[in-house]
Amino acid sequence: MSPRTLQLVLHYDGAGFAGWQRQPDSRTVQGCLEEALGRLCSAPVPVLGAGRTDAGVHARGQACGIRVPERWTAAEMRRALNAILPRDIWVSSAHVMQPEFHARYDAVARRYRYKVGLDEEASSPFRSRWEWAWRKPVSREALHEATSALIGTHIFRAFAVRGTAPEHDDHRCTVTHAEWNERDGGLDFTIEANRFLHHMVRFITGTLMNVASGRRPASDIATLLEASDNQNVSPPAPAHALFLERVSYPPHCYLDSFEQ
Amino acid sequence: MSPRTLQLVLHYDGAGFAGWQRQPDSRTVQGCLEEALGRLCSAPVPVLGAGRTDAGVHARGQACGIRVPERWTAAEMRRALNAILPRDIWVSSAHVMQPEFHARYDAVARRYRYKVGLDEEASSPFRSRWEWAWRKPVSREALHEATSALIGTHIFRAFAVRGTAPEHDDHRCTVTHAEWNERDGGLDFTIEANRFLHHMVRFITGTLMNVASGRRPASDIATLLEASDNQNVSPPAPAHALFLERVSYPPHCYLDSFEQ
Repeated sequence: MSPRTLQLVLHYDGAGFAGWQRQPDSRTVQGCLEEALGRLCSAPVPVLGAGRTDAGVHARGQACGIRVPERWTAAEMRRALNAILPRDIWVSSAHVMQPEFHARYDAVARRYRYKVGLDEEASSPFRSRWEWAWRKPVSREALHEATSALIGTHIFRAFAVRGTAPEHDDHRCTVTHAEWNERDGGLDFTIEANRFLHHMVRFITGTLMNVASGRRPASDIATLLEASDNQNVSPPAPAHALFLERVSYPPHCYLDSFEQ
Repeated sequence: MSPRTLQLVLHYDGAGFAGWQRQPDSRTVQGCLEEALGRLCSAPVPVLGAGRTDAGVHARGQACGIRVPERWTAAEMRRALNAILPRDIWVSSAHVMQPEFHARYDAVARRYRYKVGLDEEASSPFRSRWEWAWRKPVSREALHEATSALIGTHIFRAFAVRGTAPEHDDHRCTVTHAEWNERDGGLDFTIEANRFLHHMVRFITGTLMNVASGRRPASDIATLLEASDNQNVSPPAPAHALFLERVSYPPHCYLDSFEQ
């Protein structure tokens, strides 16, 4: 019986998880998915994520790949999973993929969003659960100037946790999109790149917000992109306001007629 | 030293509380507030709520009254409380009230909102945390017809938990406002009355949604308003999508210049 390769697109509220990656004694997204799939398929089904999200980080578009018995259609698997998964994980779509699909290596872009709350009500529990309430002044001009310096291919070693990448890693990432959008009561930062290093979006956001409040000059971004370590980066912005929004794959990975 | 009477307006996420009312071994909103106030004032400060919300019910406008030493201004008390309260309670405003202010007896109206999700994404954790995902068809016409029957003064015994009101209670409530508003992906029900019985909004919403999906006729609302018990009411809608939105007091209760 040849297995079927599926991609699942996931929403999860990171608050209740010790991150994506399976761990023996912690509740993780991968762990919950593998448990649910094991029950449905009566056999272990490894889940391969497009990337690992940290403890507390949310997703509205995490992607993962699974191989399941052929009797499962994508729609049936989605329905069955949503019926038994805990309430803080939700499969928003499922697609039939080429047999050799690899959720991590085939991904060509990842998009994150970081939500910053600027008004007083950002401290309300209905906002602060998923936003970073920022209480200092914000210069949009400095913020935009600093943000535009991120676009392009750079060495992001200064914006990564030390020692987490393999030794041969050059920390090179290509940022294709980085912008701030005004919304009611706050600002949303959207950043897309071919890859992200560990804590990279949170280090970038923390540093950009310190630029926005005048604690450091906008030119620091360019300086940090030349740095050989993370000594001068600002503290990472908190995890609870970060969302993995989308993972993109080339059309040829899909066997179904899904239009991205 | 004469005390100062303050009104606090509160947001809270009901998920983490066994309801409003203080209980010896449970985490409650009143309990958390009294603990914080006791620390700030170095003496017990009883908190009197406008009404009790059930376990799981949220508030974006619960009101309560406290008496504190005169050295506390309303603004300072609000700031101090927000600095030490747990993250799921937030004081959105504080007002100086007439000394004889009574948060429960002086309230002239309470307003609740119930959030119903109708699209598929209502099952996403970012929606289902605070919405009731409703998967059956909805007739707006039946919903509006049934809802309009609630307006006015009626005996709401059929929409209350039995035996929770005092024996002399006539279960009479005056509903001044009841309507459904369309929003992205769902419907919000807003209802305002001089008072509400125990579980009343949830019984009403559960029954209205059964009318909306065709399980019972719109005329059932009028029939239930004539009933002497709650035998024929639909099951209550779940608590997690209900918000206490506002409690209204007459202007003469306020000593500060707050405009409602």
